[in-house]
Amino acid sequence: MKSLEDYLSMVGPADTGVIDSVQKRLDSQTKPLGSLGRLESLCRQMAAVQGTADPVFDKKVIFTLAGDHGVVSEGVSAYPQSVTGQMVLNFVNRGAGVNVLAAHAGCKVVVVDMGVAQDLDCEGLINKKVDYGTKNFTVGPAMTREQAEKSIVSGIGLALDYEFDILGTGDMGIGNTTPSAAVACVIMGSDARDVTGRGTGIDDDTLSKKVDVIKRGIILNRPDPADPVDVLAKVGGFEIGGIAGLIIGAAIKKRLAVVDGFISTAGAIVARGLNKYIDDYFIVSHLSAEKGHDIFTEWLGKEPVLDLGMRLGEGTGAALAIEIIDAAMHLYYDMATFDGAGVEKKSL
Amino acid sequence: MKSLEDYLSMVGPADTGVIDSVQKRLDSQTKPLGSLGRLESLCRQMAAVQGTADPVFDKKVIFTLAGDHGVVSEGVSAYPQSVTGQMVLNFVNRGAGVNVLAAHAGCKVVVVDMGVAQDLDCEGLINKKVDYGTKNFTVGPAMTREQAEKSIVSGIGLALDYEFDILGTGDMGIGNTTPSAAVACVIMGSDARDVTGRGTGIDDDTLSKKVDVIKRGIILNRPDPADPVDVLAKVGGFEIGGIAGLIIGAAIKKRLAVVDGFISTAGAIVARGLNKYIDDYFIVSHLSAEKGHDIFTEWLGKEPVLDLGMRLGEGTGAALAIEIIDAAMHLYYDMATFDGAGVEKKSL
Repeated sequence: MKSLEDYLSMVGPADTGVIDSVQKRLDSQTKPLGSLGRLESLCRQMAAVQGTADPVFDKKVIFTLAGDHGVVSEGVSAYPQSVTGQMVLNFVNRGAGVNVLAAHAGCKVVVVDMGVAQDLDCEGLINKKVDYGTKNFTVGPAMTREQAEKSIVSGIGLALDYEFDILGTGDMGIGNTTPSAAVACVIMGSDARDVTGRGTGIDDDTLSKKVDVIKRGIILNRPDPADPVDVLAKVGGFEIGGIAGLIIGAAIKKRLAVVDGFISTAGAIVARGLNKYIDDYFIVSHLSAEKGHDIFTEWLGKEPVLDLGMRLGEGTGAALAIEIIDAAMHLYYDMATFDGAGVEKKSL
Repeated sequence: MKSLEDYLSMVGPADTGVIDSVQKRLDSQTKPLGSLGRLESLCRQMAAVQGTADPVFDKKVIFTLAGDHGVVSEGVSAYPQSVTGQMVLNFVNRGAGVNVLAAHAGCKVVVVDMGVAQDLDCEGLINKKVDYGTKNFTVGPAMTREQAEKSIVSGIGLALDYEFDILGTGDMGIGNTTPSAAVACVIMGSDARDVTGRGTGIDDDTLSKKVDVIKRGIILNRPDPADPVDVLAKVGGFEIGGIAGLIIGAAIKKRLAVVDGFISTAGAIVARGLNKYIDDYFIVSHLSAEKGHDIFTEWLGKEPVLDLGMRLGEGTGAALAIEIIDAAMHLYYDMATFDGAGVEKKSL
């Protein structure tokens, strides 16, 4: 079995050499140069990622990764921990937001138990359980280094096992904005206060407690900002590691990863910390309404495709962005050219 | 035949009384309260517009209205005027950007000649030609007041004649960012320089000329800012009037109008100037990359759904936003409830 190091060595830069011919095709189409804006840059990135001016975009899969968090015993979430498992059943029964939006976007949803705190035995759930939830990181590390590596390698394995042309990431885990904020603020070197928000809807007192919990976790565990696996182990979560792995796996397969919101972007920050080429292979689907997500995306240098005030997670933002990418690719392949349609070009 | 005044008297406010029950349904679904952000507000507006908590959203039509502009003889556009007619053929042959994006969004495209400067005889084109292009507004009014009213009433007629649950607006007309900027800056009372951009891609010198052309047209014709029909007649265009009419027609039918970009928003500014209730019945689909569109949308108090750096017109932004609205409505109807899915509610 390959190690995380083995996998990381398989990721190289995207093929920017194809971009000129992509742009040439876009410029031959019946529209003013560049007038499709972000849709054109999405076409260029799809092509560079796949290393061809004729990228494929038929098969789309959203992976919704679930995990539980020992830190919820500190009272950082508005919902009881049991909701993680209940929502997993909701995903498998196709009743959740991500199911509706994924169906709308023509995406398959793969639901994965990365570390839910209970046994879940239901058809259609993929079992990659690393442990029954993480430990409370205010009293010790959230997981062992081995578990952190296992969560990432499991995510890579998921990406390698499933066929897809575009991958979307998603998460479920009561309390998981807390480890996401913790992981990101350590790696980015920012103040916990600036990247800690209300999650599913906590009040002011709980928010203060949440910031304090993150600060105490970081002071106690001393994660090394230069070592993303250490950070993930000390203050992270299994689904965050899994999402980092999905993005790495997509890069290995030369396919675009569409990163969902706050939790998924924390995963992307881990992945990029492990290999700088990862940068070429993912986009951020939307700007979450969760405080701090703008700081995450600016740090990554990624402009989110959408900004709809959403903060649901699950892969809901990824599903909507995949719909936009699909539309962009249809334009790329289906629009008429100036010559073909007999339309005159720019005269000034 | 009804007059514009008759039609305007048929528009009343949307039914905000249904919003509570819409929100109640949204709040019963398996997600944190309000976590679908703009998607939830789109559901509320769809319901208020239709006056029912069970709005329909099956039939979607984008109207792409074409017209020519005498002011192009001043050299304000990068493309020759003949391109308007050529693009109309491209629309009818389903090769243009709007055709691809409308198909992706499940929308029908209705192509209308509102005033192209040549005879166009092709199957599938709706003829509402007011005249063979407007006059050059730097030497006199663009059209007569009767023509301005006719263009608006024709747009209303289109909306009344076609069946739809959601209407999208679109435009085609070489040179039409010039009258759009002129119309909007008169009604908004802004400086022409602030709302005049590069359209299909003009250089600095042409841009200076374009600003000067707009200023001269306004000084010469003295349009009355309080009388949108006068403004449309003096410095507007037939497709801009038609788009204003489409929005009014949608309001009469209690259906949502999804306004495209720069030109369509100028049409919305005319429509709202004619009847304040119009406000309830439209959204702005996207923030155009064309300079000044942000000023248009702020003046209207409308937050665009998308911001993708697009500046193609035709209804392309409307098509993408309709796709988002369709996704929102699917969430509204198809997501599981807490009770139905056996998921516990918020505990804090």
